[in-house]
Amino acid sequence: MILSNEERFKLVKRNTSEIVSEEELMNLLKKKKNPVVYWGTAVTGKPSLAYFFPILKLSDFSKAGFKVKILLADLHGALDGTPWLILEHRYDYYKEAITQILKALGTDLKKIEFVKGSEFQLGHEYMYDVLKIASMASVHDCKKAASEVVKMGDNPMLGGLIYPIMQALDEQYLGVDIQFGGLDQRKILMFARENLPKAGYDRRVEVMNPMIQGLIGKKMSSSDPKSKIDLTDDEKTIKDKVNYSYCMEGNSDCGIMEFLKYVIMTIKSDNKEKFSVERADKFGGNVDYSNYNDIEKDFLEKKLHPMDLKNAVAKEIILLLDKVDKKKLNELAKKAYTTLN
Amino acid sequence: MILSNEERFKLVKRNTSEIVSEEELMNLLKKKKNPVVYWGTAVTGKPSLAYFFPILKLSDFSKAGFKVKILLADLHGALDGTPWLILEHRYDYYKEAITQILKALGTDLKKIEFVKGSEFQLGHEYMYDVLKIASMASVHDCKKAASEVVKMGDNPMLGGLIYPIMQALDEQYLGVDIQFGGLDQRKILMFARENLPKAGYDRRVEVMNPMIQGLIGKKMSSSDPKSKIDLTDDEKTIKDKVNYSYCMEGNSDCGIMEFLKYVIMTIKSDNKEKFSVERADKFGGNVDYSNYNDIEKDFLEKKLHPMDLKNAVAKEIILLLDKVDKKKLNELAKKAYTTLN
Repeated sequence: MILSNEERFKLVKRNTSEIVSEEELMNLLKKKKNPVVYWGTAVTGKPSLAYFFPILKLSDFSKAGFKVKILLADLHGALDGTPWLILEHRYDYYKEAITQILKALGTDLKKIEFVKGSEFQLGHEYMYDVLKIASMASVHDCKKAASEVVKMGDNPMLGGLIYPIMQALDEQYLGVDIQFGGLDQRKILMFARENLPKAGYDRRVEVMNPMIQGLIGKKMSSSDPKSKIDLTDDEKTIKDKVNYSYCMEGNSDCGIMEFLKYVIMTIKSDNKEKFSVERADKFGGNVDYSNYNDIEKDFLEKKLHPMDLKNAVAKEIILLLDKVDKKKLNELAKKAYTTLN
Repeated sequence: MILSNEERFKLVKRNTSEIVSEEELMNLLKKKKNPVVYWGTAVTGKPSLAYFFPILKLSDFSKAGFKVKILLADLHGALDGTPWLILEHRYDYYKEAITQILKALGTDLKKIEFVKGSEFQLGHEYMYDVLKIASMASVHDCKKAASEVVKMGDNPMLGGLIYPIMQALDEQYLGVDIQFGGLDQRKILMFARENLPKAGYDRRVEVMNPMIQGLIGKKMSSSDPKSKIDLTDDEKTIKDKVNYSYCMEGNSDCGIMEFLKYVIMTIKSDNKEKFSVERADKFGGNVDYSNYNDIEKDFLEKKLHPMDLKNAVAKEIILLLDKVDKKKLNELAKKAYTTLN
């Protein structure tokens, strides 16, 4: 099926919150049938269920003709606090976790190229360019760029300020036309656009997807396991976490609804499947939805109760994670998330 | 002539202002007959007459059995503001200028190994270690370390903060036992001692020589040519600058006296030569000095007038610079110090 450039544009734009700039994106699509996009993740905390969202989004790029690269940024992980001693194990975990998610989503793995950061980021030219940009980017700007992504605290390490410079150069050295990332990356992505030209390179198009809220607060927290669902959580844990999650009747501003919208219902509508809510006849009986808007409408009008919604969502999450090889991940996690003293 | 360890120690210590630590230096001398020392210079402003001091000092190390390396730090120059476009020309100038000084001092060039920074600082392992230390050294500490060496201003660039990390690693990658530098480097040298162990390396002994004052103020200024004597200055310019310099009767706290002490009289006493002051009989007639202390004593007691001192010093400087190939340096300077817009 050959898509028009407008259709390709729409696919890339779907479920995103910002594109810088849409005009450049359109020009890119007109110019290249098979542009390159990359999505990167620093190997830090444990990838959670939320990773399904950006990874699912990668298939939109793929359908729009893009070559897709996934950067497993090990060195960036270390610059954000992952201990150097277990960095390699952490990398192994990420690679396996993301592979499992891709499989669970039915993605053709041959269409995805994995790249390990340290494999090209330690090269002569790369280092030269890091120093070049570092000599022209202010401490202030680097700090600002990293502030929403890198853990800073009262006494930030210098590594966190080199982080955005390397992320900018990754666009060049991975040979991509687009970097795709979460909206939390916005400042880093804008930093890349501003600073790549200083090293003589073209700025890239930046595509951002919205952030999915945590289950019990706006942000997912690695210190509170109840705020997110882990890839290795079993059925009972998933049900408990979903049930415990913050989801008020008539208010769709919560992590459950967001995951439903961006992940579950995106998959369902692509597959022409329906989202089924089971409930006793006395509560209205079973109901099927074919798109998110209908669900949200019912939810806002209190025709769909949080309890029934939660049960249905939990069932879908269990189904998604059913394909994940949890045993393998748990095994890798032993070395990857050991506590060092 | 075989020197005792005590004699070697005394040679290394001569004309220095601080050694961290003297105990470690003594242990090093006991352990190694031929340790390695390096003196580095970032290719930034124009090397002036003051460069004779550290370069002369290198022969003390040589006599004490050291293998001597000179690091021409081109990348450090760029991190301190030398434009990347002319970095290579600036490097060429430094290499020639320092070679000329070594020749003027009669140093056996075979005993000196020149190393260019970018030749090893862009390697995989080096970059890995830069990132490693950067992940463990705070922005605050890097800034503090660089503050007296790197031009900072109100809006410092990030490169200036990477500078001390690279200087620390140079000790390891040049395989040296000692880094020798000016007292202005103190914070960077202490940073190296604190941070090299974080990357798993031994801290080195740091040897510092005092800073020689400018001719018309405490610091040499690249914006005021009268504050220092350039290697390419002709006789008349040298005489004018020395005459114009700040040197009050009875006060030895000035650049002229310091250069006399650390350079001229060090050479003279090593060569068993005398420093001659010519003056008319009515002003006391000619007088010869065989050591600096005698000169300073007479000067403090106002038995030696600044005018006579200046004339004698100017003559010695002209003699020193007479061996410098000024034409060659001026030719190289055209490209190395061109103004970019």
